[in-house]
Amino acid sequence: MKIAVMGAGAIGCYYGGLLARSGLPVTLIGRRLHVDAVKERGLVMEVGEERFTVPMDATTEVSGVADADVVLFCVKSGDTEAVGRDMLPHLRPDVTMLCLQNGVDNPDRLRAVTGGTVVPVAVYVATAMAGAGHVKHHGRGDLVMGPSPRDAEIVARFTAAGIPTTVSEAAIDALWGKLIVNCAYNALSALTQLPYGRLLAVPGVAEVMTDVVAECTAVATASGVTIAAGTLPAVLGLAATMPGQRSSTAQDLAMGKPTEIDHLNGLVIRKGAELHISTPANRVLHTLVKAAEAAKAGS
Amino acid sequence: MKIAVMGAGAIGCYYGGLLARSGLPVTLIGRRLHVDAVKERGLVMEVGEERFTVPMDATTEVSGVADADVVLFCVKSGDTEAVGRDMLPHLRPDVTMLCLQNGVDNPDRLRAVTGGTVVPVAVYVATAMAGAGHVKHHGRGDLVMGPSPRDAEIVARFTAAGIPTTVSEAAIDALWGKLIVNCAYNALSALTQLPYGRLLAVPGVAEVMTDVVAECTAVATASGVTIAAGTLPAVLGLAATMPGQRSSTAQDLAMGKPTEIDHLNGLVIRKGAELHISTPANRVLHTLVKAAEAAKAGS
Repeated sequence: MKIAVMGAGAIGCYYGGLLARSGLPVTLIGRRLHVDAVKERGLVMEVGEERFTVPMDATTEVSGVADADVVLFCVKSGDTEAVGRDMLPHLRPDVTMLCLQNGVDNPDRLRAVTGGTVVPVAVYVATAMAGAGHVKHHGRGDLVMGPSPRDAEIVARFTAAGIPTTVSEAAIDALWGKLIVNCAYNALSALTQLPYGRLLAVPGVAEVMTDVVAECTAVATASGVTIAAGTLPAVLGLAATMPGQRSSTAQDLAMGKPTEIDHLNGLVIRKGAELHISTPANRVLHTLVKAAEAAKAGS
Repeated sequence: MKIAVMGAGAIGCYYGGLLARSGLPVTLIGRRLHVDAVKERGLVMEVGEERFTVPMDATTEVSGVADADVVLFCVKSGDTEAVGRDMLPHLRPDVTMLCLQNGVDNPDRLRAVTGGTVVPVAVYVATAMAGAGHVKHHGRGDLVMGPSPRDAEIVARFTAAGIPTTVSEAAIDALWGKLIVNCAYNALSALTQLPYGRLLAVPGVAEVMTDVVAECTAVATASGVTIAAGTLPAVLGLAATMPGQRSSTAQDLAMGKPTEIDHLNGLVIRKGAELHISTPANRVLHTLVKAAEAAKAGS
């Protein structure tokens, strides 16, 4: 089973690295900085106390997907269509594309440009790039993926590589559960530049998150998605389990990079408008992050 | 008719100055910086092309209200109760207190600590301090005040002083109309630090303002207040008439001063909670301004 990893960020490098280490042929496709480092000395992985180097193919060319049976699709949500169109001429007709991305509509958007087998995957991992071609694991690593024709083989190979993987019709529900957490935390952490612990200590923040979760749940439910009953207490309790964490949106904004907010609160607003469900709290958060992005871009 | 002006900001200085110039005895009560300047060389006023100096009494002592028939109450909304309690032992029993403040509940809050005749006044003026004891007028200046026992005499004296003044049962409605404008603009201008013209050009801002106005109107209506039918287009159109304006909240936040947000969006949230009306957009804006205030105070 040949693997291509489209997008050499922390998610792509972590899963691609484990699969390559287990003996599968893996090609990493990403930016020159990481590709050059991996070609020169392999991917450096830090997992718990272990530190090891995994040799693998790496390229900046999207044609690197050419022979792959399975593509791990790990690009930012904003790049889904563009990268999908670039891959299309090189894809095997029987390829299985696994979307390991934030947001809930990436599989639909990728399938719209590529056709074929595109599978939603909910990713539960804390991992970050620690340098060029160097990925560090901070916790978990399990995947919940939607059903697909080759899922038995994929689960077997992934499990053998040390990636706990389950197949579930509820993968989309799991993605929505993650989306709700992101809608509650990412914009507030970005706009205040506060870590989660101090964020929840600000008067009113718990009430704002309660409004955001209620709006997201209404939109999800009207979209046919099942949201677990304990979602609100789980969201409010998250800050206590990772008080020092800042959201990816906070990090993107601080570095002047485009955020994924259009695919977080922005998606809830768009879906809400389609379904005639009002989303005022999500709208304020989305609008202020877009204004902050524009201010950074202009400065 | 003896006048005391409690609070020597731009509003207090502008109206107190016009009344003193018309020949009424006026005592200005405020901070040392302005009081010293006024005692030394009178209040400097710039109105249109005119520049003139108005001699008047000035003091930093709240006992300056002692002989006043009319008190112009011009302090920040957050200081209403504390200043009211300080004034109480010095007030004439038949005093008329005119609240020339932002927000809608200052008359009720002042009356709760002072008793007596407290009158809501909606102020339509653009004016700013240009230095110590120096006020500059930028536009309008008319007042809409609620009914009170001495209102005929007050209107006559004010009108003679060049202050267009009308008495209306709808003064509270007018204050709510101003509050809605402030709820729509102040926090957004503060959080983005954008002037109104550029603010309205940010995608999503008009929709956020629409949500804010709808929430405020629902709370006002349930409180027995009449909101004019054209309020939303008037709010959205305001930016075009003053594109360079930044909100007072934006100025307070930029200077690290406490804002009046608890008496703007914060009031709508509290009234909404009492009336079981949800106010999610106002809540996000209020919470983020409070977080920004706290961040400024901590930095």
